[in-house]
Amino acid sequence: MNVLLPQPYLLFLGETTEPGYAKTAFGLRDWSPQRCLGEFSLPGATVSTGLPFLTPVQARNAGARAMVIGVANAGGFIPQTWIGALLEAMQAGLDLVGGMHARLRDIPVLRDAAMQYGRRLIDVREPPAKIPVASGRRRTGRRLLTVGTDCALGKKYTALALARAFQAHGEAATFRATGQTGILIAGGGIPMDAVVADFAAGAAELLTPDADPTHWDVIEGQGSLLHPAYAGVSLALLHGSQPDVFVVCHEPGRDRVLGHPDFAVPDVLDVIDLTIRLGSRTSPHIRCAGVSLNTAKMDTGAALRLFDRESERLGMPVGDPMRGGKAFERLVKACLA
Amino acid sequence: MNVLLPQPYLLFLGETTEPGYAKTAFGLRDWSPQRCLGEFSLPGATVSTGLPFLTPVQARNAGARAMVIGVANAGGFIPQTWIGALLEAMQAGLDLVGGMHARLRDIPVLRDAAMQYGRRLIDVREPPAKIPVASGRRRTGRRLLTVGTDCALGKKYTALALARAFQAHGEAATFRATGQTGILIAGGGIPMDAVVADFAAGAAELLTPDADPTHWDVIEGQGSLLHPAYAGVSLALLHGSQPDVFVVCHEPGRDRVLGHPDFAVPDVLDVIDLTIRLGSRTSPHIRCAGVSLNTAKMDTGAALRLFDRESERLGMPVGDPMRGGKAFERLVKACLA
Repeated sequence: MNVLLPQPYLLFLGETTEPGYAKTAFGLRDWSPQRCLGEFSLPGATVSTGLPFLTPVQARNAGARAMVIGVANAGGFIPQTWIGALLEAMQAGLDLVGGMHARLRDIPVLRDAAMQYGRRLIDVREPPAKIPVASGRRRTGRRLLTVGTDCALGKKYTALALARAFQAHGEAATFRATGQTGILIAGGGIPMDAVVADFAAGAAELLTPDADPTHWDVIEGQGSLLHPAYAGVSLALLHGSQPDVFVVCHEPGRDRVLGHPDFAVPDVLDVIDLTIRLGSRTSPHIRCAGVSLNTAKMDTGAALRLFDRESERLGMPVGDPMRGGKAFERLVKACLA
Repeated sequence: MNVLLPQPYLLFLGETTEPGYAKTAFGLRDWSPQRCLGEFSLPGATVSTGLPFLTPVQARNAGARAMVIGVANAGGFIPQTWIGALLEAMQAGLDLVGGMHARLRDIPVLRDAAMQYGRRLIDVREPPAKIPVASGRRRTGRRLLTVGTDCALGKKYTALALARAFQAHGEAATFRATGQTGILIAGGGIPMDAVVADFAAGAAELLTPDADPTHWDVIEGQGSLLHPAYAGVSLALLHGSQPDVFVVCHEPGRDRVLGHPDFAVPDVLDVIDLTIRLGSRTSPHIRCAGVSLNTAKMDTGAALRLFDRESERLGMPVGDPMRGGKAFERLVKACLA
């Protein structure tokens, strides 16, 4: 069902000098080290994941199956300067995996080379064919969804951290990816934002099928129910994934919606209330386990004080998965309770 | 911006014997008679719109620009028996317009003929290219959206009837179509259900652009905010269309969601409350003007009594646009108030 990607990977970094453009490579290194054998970059690159530098031939000999484009540039396209390296990888026996807006197979020279060398060009932004309309049928197994007050504030990292913590607690847990970086990390998934609207809830059902009653699907959320552009995606994901439990992700100090400065970021309580009201349509006993705060911009003392204050205000655990510690452990236990 | 269709039309009815399959043709006859010159069907057809029978050549000579496939069959595909008539139409100088799941241009013999005769094959289920992400920016002009307690209970007909009634009251009003039959009737529009999820709210913004401050866009709703499969589409349409006013469409007696018998049809009050709560994110002063009931299965006395009873319970006008009369007129006035 899911896109299953050829692994392990060689991470391609282009000639990148700006770490912010290498988020995909860093995410893979941090969350999926067992899938990453090394990195490959062009002269001029200053960004590194710290993994060993391997040429495509060396990576292939070490067992790599694909080269993943681990960087984005501002336009989301594939610059001419990368083509030689991409061809070299295919010649060495690696498939190419990309998560950019521009599709690998829309570039004729790559398509021709893939044909010649018998390699695959895999665009992880492409949803699977034949997604059914959602049925709304209840499925076996347990499910957790991360939801948010906005985009890009930690829904993927929270889901990854929770899945890992669940496993540390001896629970069977699978991270379910709904965006391109998550799909690369998980080695499979469905890019929710690229599914045709009528089938979006169906895609979420497909992503989180019937499972053992004790198994957890930990599902990467998308957007926000109060986002002026993406709320439809968030609602389809909520309805289709039928979470038993959700965790709200929020960034303290962010008061305007990213890219939509006319819109205030909603309060966490609003998001909790709305998620329960809408989510209970397909998951009648849905509950909020707590809040995941992205406190990367705060010092430790301020973050810990904020966890306490918000936990008291909301009456539930509040922590930051990137800081871990007791606050996050309380959140994990509340999810599993 | 909108797909603008070649008009007027010749309506094609195939060899249809089941009136239920000819909904598109009947909708066009009822709501867009000025765009329909006549009908064309195959031997064996018993269904007729009552419009004059014209061959493609006669229709072209009378000014027709396109032949519209006005019937569906169970599978949503184009049967082999229609091909001769479709080729005849192109040869006569007519473009072909289809709204089925199967696309005209995926049929090689039609594609070849279109090339040969210089004709267009237009699939109205296809959204325009390059839809932007929604901005959430407030636009000028007034907007009304029909929303529903379920699918297929009168949102399109209610919007068409309200647009016509607004015009009768001297208001400038445009019906904005969001589904294939509506698009054929309006001669343009965007098939919301076929837009990629991330761009669905953006599509609704594109469909209802800045307009004269006194102009009404009357927008065809889709699905329901409480539908287990399509709620994401409904929410994107609500956020993107930014309605000042909405009307809830409901079918008395329908108590289970169509095709999803495990789900109860929600109460009208629930839908009103949820639409205001979610819609106010992009349209702060959104209000409900009243309720449109589909009473086709009721006798007149029972329908009129129901309008009174529901109007009292809800504290707002309740009518059926297909029955018209005082009840519907009160609803129209509440919209314009």
